[in-house]
Amino acid sequence: MASGDSGKRKAVVLLSGGLDSATCLAIAANEGFQAHALTFRYGQRHQAEIEAARTIAGIYAAAGHDFFDIDLAQFGGSALTGDVAVPKDRSEADIADGIPVTYVPARNTVFLSLALARAETLAATEIFIGVNALDYSGYPDCRPEYIKAFQTLANLATKTGVEAAGGEGEGITLHAPLQDMTKAEIIRKGTGLGVDYSRTMSCYDPVLAPGQGNDGFVHCGHCDACQLRRKGFAEAGIDDPTVYAG
Amino acid sequence: MASGDSGKRKAVVLLSGGLDSATCLAIAANEGFQAHALTFRYGQRHQAEIEAARTIAGIYAAAGHDFFDIDLAQFGGSALTGDVAVPKDRSEADIADGIPVTYVPARNTVFLSLALARAETLAATEIFIGVNALDYSGYPDCRPEYIKAFQTLANLATKTGVEAAGGEGEGITLHAPLQDMTKAEIIRKGTGLGVDYSRTMSCYDPVLAPGQGNDGFVHCGHCDACQLRRKGFAEAGIDDPTVYAG
Repeated sequence: MASGDSGKRKAVVLLSGGLDSATCLAIAANEGFQAHALTFRYGQRHQAEIEAARTIAGIYAAAGHDFFDIDLAQFGGSALTGDVAVPKDRSEADIADGIPVTYVPARNTVFLSLALARAETLAATEIFIGVNALDYSGYPDCRPEYIKAFQTLANLATKTGVEAAGGEGEGITLHAPLQDMTKAEIIRKGTGLGVDYSRTMSCYDPVLAPGQGNDGFVHCGHCDACQLRRKGFAEAGIDDPTVYAG
Repeated sequence: MASGDSGKRKAVVLLSGGLDSATCLAIAANEGFQAHALTFRYGQRHQAEIEAARTIAGIYAAAGHDFFDIDLAQFGGSALTGDVAVPKDRSEADIADGIPVTYVPARNTVFLSLALARAETLAATEIFIGVNALDYSGYPDCRPEYIKAFQTLANLATKTGVEAAGGEGEGITLHAPLQDMTKAEIIRKGTGLGVDYSRTMSCYDPVLAPGQGNDGFVHCGHCDACQLRRKGFAEAGIDDPTVYAG
């Protein structure tokens, strides 16, 4: 725990190691919460984003950082867990259309349910998740109505929620501060808060490049996440510190 | 997959190895679903219930049986994951009052979210969970309003749910058939379906007894779950096949 943090309210912050969750962590810290990062090793193709999460949690002085192993690859069904190839060089229209093969079945529900468990054992009153409804409109579990339904569930699911309903304590509030922001707006917000985006990893299919990028991995430059990231920096008018393989 | 099952609709059935979930599996099979059991190794104190789940899935010809490792003990906070002693010989009034120390933070939410992921990858249209609101009134995540909130979330969270909302496919329906039944009613129902309760394990704190019970473990006879089990058989007027240590 960082010194001087003991009087602060606690927040569990889902931290993937990407641009969005790094910004979300900076926002939670900036709003005065004692931020506990939670990173899932869920069977994603590459460890690069997990290493990025470790670096980012270190920089933003998260009060604690849990790594939680949960093998979603056991169930299969997603490009992100290795069943299907990660699509490259899709058009903006294709990225915006439908549910992509990088959708991991019920992933955010699994992650939020574990964040809820963690919040309850930490006596944290807040959960932060960096979902974004604009750039990732194809993921059902990034939509505002989904986040709202999870808040309703959280109030009913937990001891903390039941106590809050009875007038004791505050329950657990879910925050999705990036929900309505464009990628450019997220980048501007994070830059204002001092986020070093060169240490984040958004790519669905990072490329090994010893001595470069994040612990020897660089962004592929062609998957949906890389394209949205590159475009976001361009639209924000902020120099993109990302190393892209191509 | 059991032969002749291929035309049936698929259901994911949460199977702990206890009396309730065994009954739930029998109900799902009896209703004509191709039942896929899902058992969590979540850091519970004893492996006896996991072995019971294996036996029961074998008996009731579940079309498949997944064991999923998820270390909820990493977060702590429950008697069931070893942080606190399991209470014994509590009165009926105490059992009915408040949230017990055997509550595992957000456990059913974590389990249901993983069942949702499994249902989606299996193309299952149903999830069965053996929660019961009468005997376990203290657990927030067994209440009808909780189950209803999870159904709402499931519809919004998944690709399957989004497709169903668009008129394609059926989505995923959550069933909690034991929800409003007393323990005696559950036992009568399961007995009618041929459930062999001697092979189930309800105990929060099983006792090693080589050569007896379930793979050498017997029920303690004194925890809340044992007391409710014993009382249920008595009220049902059905011989209790359970071996209790005391």
